[in-house]
Amino acid sequence: MKQFFSVADVVDLSEIVDEALRLKQAPFAYEQLGKRKTLGLVFLNPSLRTRLSTQKAAMQLGMDVMVMNMDKDGWALETRDGVAMDGATVEHIREAAAVMGQYCDVLGIRSFPKLIDRDADYSEDLFRKFSSYCGVPVISLESATRHPLQSFADLITIHEHWRKPSIPKVVLAWAPHVKALPQAVPNSFSEWMCRAQAAGMVDFTIAHPEGYALSEVFTQGAAVVNSLDEALIGADFVYVKNWSSYDDYGQILPVREQWMLDNRKLAITNNAKVMHCLPVRRDLELASEVLDGPQSLVIPEAGNRVWAAQAVLKRMLGEN
Amino acid sequence: MKQFFSVADVVDLSEIVDEALRLKQAPFAYEQLGKRKTLGLVFLNPSLRTRLSTQKAAMQLGMDVMVMNMDKDGWALETRDGVAMDGATVEHIREAAAVMGQYCDVLGIRSFPKLIDRDADYSEDLFRKFSSYCGVPVISLESATRHPLQSFADLITIHEHWRKPSIPKVVLAWAPHVKALPQAVPNSFSEWMCRAQAAGMVDFTIAHPEGYALSEVFTQGAAVVNSLDEALIGADFVYVKNWSSYDDYGQILPVREQWMLDNRKLAITNNAKVMHCLPVRRDLELASEVLDGPQSLVIPEAGNRVWAAQAVLKRMLGEN
Amino acid sequence: MKQFFSVADVVDLSEIVDEALRLKQAPFAYEQLGKRKTLGLVFLNPSLRTRLSTQKAAMQLGMDVMVMNMDKDGWALETRDGVAMDGATVEHIREAAAVMGQYCDVLGIRSFPKLIDRDADYSEDLFRKFSSYCGVPVISLESATRHPLQSFADLITIHEHWRKPSIPKVVLAWAPHVKALPQAVPNSFSEWMCRAQAAGMVDFTIAHPEGYALSEVFTQGAAVVNSLDEALIGADFVYVKNWSSYDDYGQILPVREQWMLDNRKLAITNNAKVMHCLPVRRDLELASEVLDGPQSLVIPEAGNRVWAAQAVLKRMLGEN
Repeated sequence: MKQFFSVADVVDLSEIVDEALRLKQAPFAYEQLGKRKTLGLVFLNPSLRTRLSTQKAAMQLGMDVMVMNMDKDGWALETRDGVAMDGATVEHIREAAAVMGQYCDVLGIRSFPKLIDRDADYSEDLFRKFSSYCGVPVISLESATRHPLQSFADLITIHEHWRKPSIPKVVLAWAPHVKALPQAVPNSFSEWMCRAQAAGMVDFTIAHPEGYALSEVFTQGAAVVNSLDEALIGADFVYVKNWSSYDDYGQILPVREQWMLDNRKLAITNNAKVMHCLPVRRDLELASEVLDGPQSLVIPEAGNRVWAAQAVLKRMLGEN
Repeated sequence: MKQFFSVADVVDLSEIVDEALRLKQAPFAYEQLGKRKTLGLVFLNPSLRTRLSTQKAAMQLGMDVMVMNMDKDGWALETRDGVAMDGATVEHIREAAAVMGQYCDVLGIRSFPKLIDRDADYSEDLFRKFSSYCGVPVISLESATRHPLQSFADLITIHEHWRKPSIPKVVLAWAPHVKALPQAVPNSFSEWMCRAQAAGMVDFTIAHPEGYALSEVFTQGAAVVNSLDEALIGADFVYVKNWSSYDDYGQILPVREQWMLDNRKLAITNNAKVMHCLPVRRDLELASEVLDGPQSLVIPEAGNRVWAAQAVLKRMLGEN
Repeated sequence: MKQFFSVADVVDLSEIVDEALRLKQAPFAYEQLGKRKTLGLVFLNPSLRTRLSTQKAAMQLGMDVMVMNMDKDGWALETRDGVAMDGATVEHIREAAAVMGQYCDVLGIRSFPKLIDRDADYSEDLFRKFSSYCGVPVISLESATRHPLQSFADLITIHEHWRKPSIPKVVLAWAPHVKALPQAVPNSFSEWMCRAQAAGMVDFTIAHPEGYALSEVFTQGAAVVNSLDEALIGADFVYVKNWSSYDDYGQILPVREQWMLDNRKLAITNNAKVMHCLPVRRDLELASEVLDGPQSLVIPEAGNRVWAAQAVLKRMLGEN
């Protein structure tokens, strides 16, 4: 595997989920595979879960890990070509990426969207250039429009917690927030679930208020409704997440209905398990009673980030 | 050992000091014990000695170490329950702690007091909640009211540098400063010395100006005087440290007498060794002539932080 | 080797270059040498290449690495002696260095000049005090006036890319910039090239506009011209770098001529290879057409930072 940026980089969805769960049973089964190899993790935005889980996964494979936090002032990267760098940017991504590729066998990079210019964000310019100039395999640690390690961990979690012969109904449910958040997590979750649906693994519905439709690129095959209560009927998994508007790009639109999942709404479901990528704003995005209740999977879901990262790293180190 | 927060978490004070000194003689004697185990160090406030010494101790036990600096803007943790998180805090300590517990076998956390609300600081709310929600053993890397790794290293240093059959007189001596500092180091040193005094290991006196009394919770059995010169008579170890007022909470009260230890005052002692937890303000808290003189132990004392941390980690990894 | 601060710390220039290139062929040949040893890297200023390459080199020697970023507010080191520390500085370099020496077997430190007081910067006070107080071998990760790991990597790169029996002409060429930069890189490159010239390894010329002469301490034996075109005639390697004025200390003086190297100017050379320490401002310091062209060595040059660091660390760990 040379790149892990979207679900399209995975050839065999069901097999890689199984592989991740085998790693969970035997975390050190491949601890020689990464010996003498170095993983570099580049953060243009802060990270807790992604950094720790990916670092842990790499260490379990025997790799050395170097972390670069470039989110501070004074290390602004230039991504445009053909401009004289006489302003605030101190290094071009061409050199920065190529140099890191000299020191690392695999690289990961995180870069959030600015939520100002939709075309710029959705071009994924920074990830694509970094990947193209660094010369080594690259893992997205969340890019402007996707968060594939999260979505892979989510699919692992659903698969792990579904033991019935039927196909589970999975609902991506928009939730309120006070800040304008990227669409990366819901886009990515949606493209992984659509792929899983096509493979007969899940039945996928998206619920969001009017004005919050995701880009159709990520939602092919999904059922989309504008009522949370309607979506929750028969749900086996509810994936709660806020995002800002794609159509009215980066905006928070007024929403009159109650969209926060609480126990009353959870009762509509088929005794559904509740997921969230974290961090979560308690009693704003999701009721504390749900988070602290028996149907919440948010902590083991975060734990599964390790096995997602480890399965991806294993393939980058090996021949797949 | 499931928690290292105060001296009460140590069952056998004399034995753990001996164990630390054995580790100092053979740092790699247990380098297999921590293999495939991960220590996570969480800093809500900056750290130099604590981070480096604990990291070093863990590496000598074969552990992997992941450091999380959460002292930057943008990762404010919510600790209150029952509030809708629609403000500045981005994650609740319930989720943050539980997630880190998914990735680490042992956790350490540092969090300073705010020095505004005494009851809030002395409730140790953050440490207690972190410890209760993370699900793995937790080491305090300095909390609102205690700094146990420092105090343990201090006791090791006293034990190591006292070779006479008599019981050494140890004086905790308040010192001037320009900033309002927490009571964590003197509280903790005092509770460790009171415990050591009860075990017949030291004779303990606290000297501070009026208005600077520590909470009685930490000083049971200590002699307390308001004169530095009086306290220094017969002293074998002088532990210099500034703290702000506990009674007039977090305030710097005017002090007319000379409380900075210099060679003239040191001459009053029984040729005492001088200690300080560092960082130290030269010629404000402690005279340069003392720091640079033959009676200063501040550097080997800092070195002993490694063996304190290693003895604690060893117990958390083992059966004690 | 007890210190790596300037070219004077290297006894055998040609041999250490050969050693670095042997390490490049067999990076793990000495992976037992650094086992159970710790390298501490202290950054008072930000770093990308230096941190990653030195960390990588240390890991390949089996060392553990601890990184301390002290470039944030709140950890201002005092370097002056004889002052009462009642201001903004929180710790004296005497204690800070000595403590780090307790935790590390080898230390590296980076500290840039302030470019205000030339005598203060050129006294190298901070590096010298750190080195003198820490008690273990110290590597400069760039100091006020020198960047020896960079210059060593540069010499390795020149040696590696010159396969003719003749002596290559190496030109250090001043380049424009919008910020006032230190003289550390050109000083250091110059003293290494002058030493290499004395050893018959290179023929060395410095080209800069009037007013940009380097301190003569670093340029003994170098040809110096004030015309870029003149210097480029017959050049085999062109080392492009901006620096601020040494005479009019830290100032950017007006320069009327074209000093940015582009393909037109490169055509004057003897098909020269082009070098730069990075980060580079594209189309300000150096034309994109040169950076992206076949004569650029900037990426492999950055890669060679690993072998420079590894050769130095190997000597600090061993008997040389």
